Amino acid sequence: MCKLKAAEWRPEHFKLEVADRVATITLNRPERKNPLTFESYAELRDTFIKLQYAEDVRAVVMTGAGGNFCSGGDVHDIIGPLTKMDMTGLLAFTRMTGNLVKEMRNCPQPIISAVDGVCAGAGAIISMASDLRYATPEAKTAFLFVRVGLAGCDMGACSILPRIIGQGRASELLYTGRSMSAEEGRAWGYFNDVVPAEKVLAKAQEMALSLANGPAFAHSMTKKCLHQEWNQTIEQALETEAEAQAICMQTQDFTRAYNAFVNKQVPKFEGN
Amino acid sequence: MCKLKAAEWRPEHFKLEVADRVATITLNRPERKNPLTFESYAELRDTFIKLQYAEDVRAVVMTGAGGNFCSGGDVHDIIGPLTKMDMTGLLAFTRMTGNLVKEMRNCPQPIISAVDGVCAGAGAIISMASDLRYATPEAKTAFLFVRVGLAGCDMGACSILPRIIGQGRASELLYTGRSMSAEEGRAWGYFNDVVPAEKVLAKAQEMALSLANGPAFAHSMTKKCLHQEWNQTIEQALETEAEAQAICMQTQDFTRAYNAFVNKQVPKFEGN
Amino acid sequence: MCKLKAAEWRPEHFKLEVADRVATITLNRPERKNPLTFESYAELRDTFIKLQYAEDVRAVVMTGAGGNFCSGGDVHDIIGPLTKMDMTGLLAFTRMTGNLVKEMRNCPQPIISAVDGVCAGAGAIISMASDLRYATPEAKTAFLFVRVGLAGCDMGACSILPRIIGQGRASELLYTGRSMSAEEGRAWGYFNDVVPAEKVLAKAQEMALSLANGPAFAHSMTKKCLHQEWNQTIEQALETEAEAQAICMQTQDFTRAYNAFVNKQVPKFEGN
Repeated sequence: MCKLKAAEWRPEHFKLEVADRVATITLNRPERKNPLTFESYAELRDTFIKLQYAEDVRAVVMTGAGGNFCSGGDVHDIIGPLTKMDMTGLLAFTRMTGNLVKEMRNCPQPIISAVDGVCAGAGAIISMASDLRYATPEAKTAFLFVRVGLAGCDMGACSILPRIIGQGRASELLYTGRSMSAEEGRAWGYFNDVVPAEKVLAKAQEMALSLANGPAFAHSMTKKCLHQEWNQTIEQALETEAEAQAICMQTQDFTRAYNAFVNKQVPKFEGN
Repeated sequence: MCKLKAAEWRPEHFKLEVADRVATITLNRPERKNPLTFESYAELRDTFIKLQYAEDVRAVVMTGAGGNFCSGGDVHDIIGPLTKMDMTGLLAFTRMTGNLVKEMRNCPQPIISAVDGVCAGAGAIISMASDLRYATPEAKTAFLFVRVGLAGCDMGACSILPRIIGQGRASELLYTGRSMSAEEGRAWGYFNDVVPAEKVLAKAQEMALSLANGPAFAHSMTKKCLHQEWNQTIEQALETEAEAQAICMQTQDFTRAYNAFVNKQVPKFEGN
Repeated sequence: MCKLKAAEWRPEHFKLEVADRVATITLNRPERKNPLTFESYAELRDTFIKLQYAEDVRAVVMTGAGGNFCSGGDVHDIIGPLTKMDMTGLLAFTRMTGNLVKEMRNCPQPIISAVDGVCAGAGAIISMASDLRYATPEAKTAFLFVRVGLAGCDMGACSILPRIIGQGRASELLYTGRSMSAEEGRAWGYFNDVVPAEKVLAKAQEMALSLANGPAFAHSMTKKCLHQEWNQTIEQALETEAEAQAICMQTQDFTRAYNAFVNKQVPKFEGN
């Protein structure tokens, strides 16, 4: 199997830094609040595809430069051309954006978003498709597709958002496109915590580092099961987990934890 | 395709008014707290079936007359006869009531409930099956089937209620039949907001009007996707939304929004 | 059909008391915070299997002795041996623990957990797999599999926990293994209420008694439907409930409730 090193990647459309097995992806067009373009969508998708083979990354942090997370699809670069496209082109686009979410859920590393300022449209989706989310008090998360005449059903929002904040709240956000405040997001279970702007990236990276230093193989199984069991019966989910956990019981990390416990030490996990 | 005009309908068992493409349905037996009868169940069901063909309605408001929403199935008109029915008759009844929920979820218009006072049994279900819900501080929402010796599994409650307020809270309400207060309902994500009694209908109608004046075709796709993706895998949901959103990108409303943005104007949607 | 009497059972590995048709199961190794062993797992599973035939039990309370609920799988009795087992043995173990959850969801009686102190690992799972949960302010609920190098996908947690507290909060608890406080548990919909330590068992038993004195046959249908509809479409759920409720309409409890109402009395249910 071909192992890759994410530290060697030099993406064109965003920043990617790897330190201590944590990859930090920074959307980096701050003068425009970090919008997405056809090219950055595709490069993000490809990066998450490659991450499943990256041997030097165990957790991913998503953030934006300059006090905003992401303003979504660029009006000039994306929305303009879409208004002139035929159905073949439109479907190719909506499938590509959906594939970004698919690959975010498929890669084995937990993804943690650090959200400040504008978090709109596809930006809101990227935070939604993450495993954990931290926000600043200034974060404004808006699934605002309706504001450009589109439906709330974009990149999996009608499936994923209700599972995070409940069907009634998700319906309101998707029908109206209104911003969810950071405080609402915390109260509703969208954000795992709200911290000051100067600390939010550090908070996300600290959590990512803690996961990277934990039983990373087991974390990847947790992520797989959260995905696999999305619409399984309880009986199917129990068998899915019986198999997944039995696999984890054959890892060295399980033995390391047991030995550490017996010796009254703190276990040191190696992710295998 | 046969287009209908809801403004011309004269239902026998409730009030139906259409203004500005918002249909307001008022359960209207205030002296009995607006109970349902065999006839009103059936007429409600048929009204939601016809609404999918109504060209003059883009959003629906459900409310009750005289300070109560709906007290559910009438004890004398419904429960008495049911205690004497055979299985064929019972199943015909439970399927008819289930079909009311099915048609509420199937019609393309978002449904907004304005809930005051008693909201019990099938009344609670009608609010649950709506897209958005507003309450007064006096709203008492009770899935009280257990109080008449029945199960909490009525008209989809065991499927829908947990997705709105979570499995643990739904279990409590369905096993005990106790009232959920307006404040609990807001904290738990059941009610989108709680407003004074004299304003709750206006609040629901204002939201309905705002949706009716928005990209109504796109709203109908949001509603379809919220329904379609109920138990799809994430991958299936992504394809469902890729197709649904590509369709919306061919609407004039999408172009209108883009043109308005380029010209620094507020978009005026026409729902097509 | 073979009817059983739970009052006659003398389990080896926990206490089982039956009073007023409420069975109280007490995990009872307080000096070790009530851990589970291979034998107690199996005996719990078998007890829930037999409960479907017990004619003297209509609700179940789960609790722990000595100020703690359950510390999960015993490190010496369970984790040590597991580190030396082959895949056949591991899978036999994870399937057995999953079967405990399966039988808790399969038995017709609602299960109510009274949680104080440590509620960890498989202990947290037992509370999660209950229908209702009450906690003391000191309850610490931790899905801490990750702390022993394992994944969060244990005994159905990735399927069930997100439906109770939402996908984002569940992800945090399962990836980090951190404790959920009693107050978080109440705010998130995990605990139905938090009461002082000296009252929590009485609170759970009072609720159990109330359910046992209610329309118990109907309660068992509510439990079945909550399970059956886990991943059904809304249309399938409506048919599931149409059938289930029609069956309940043929019970005597339904007629009793109607007669009591007509006579302005409080209905006395008999569970048939």
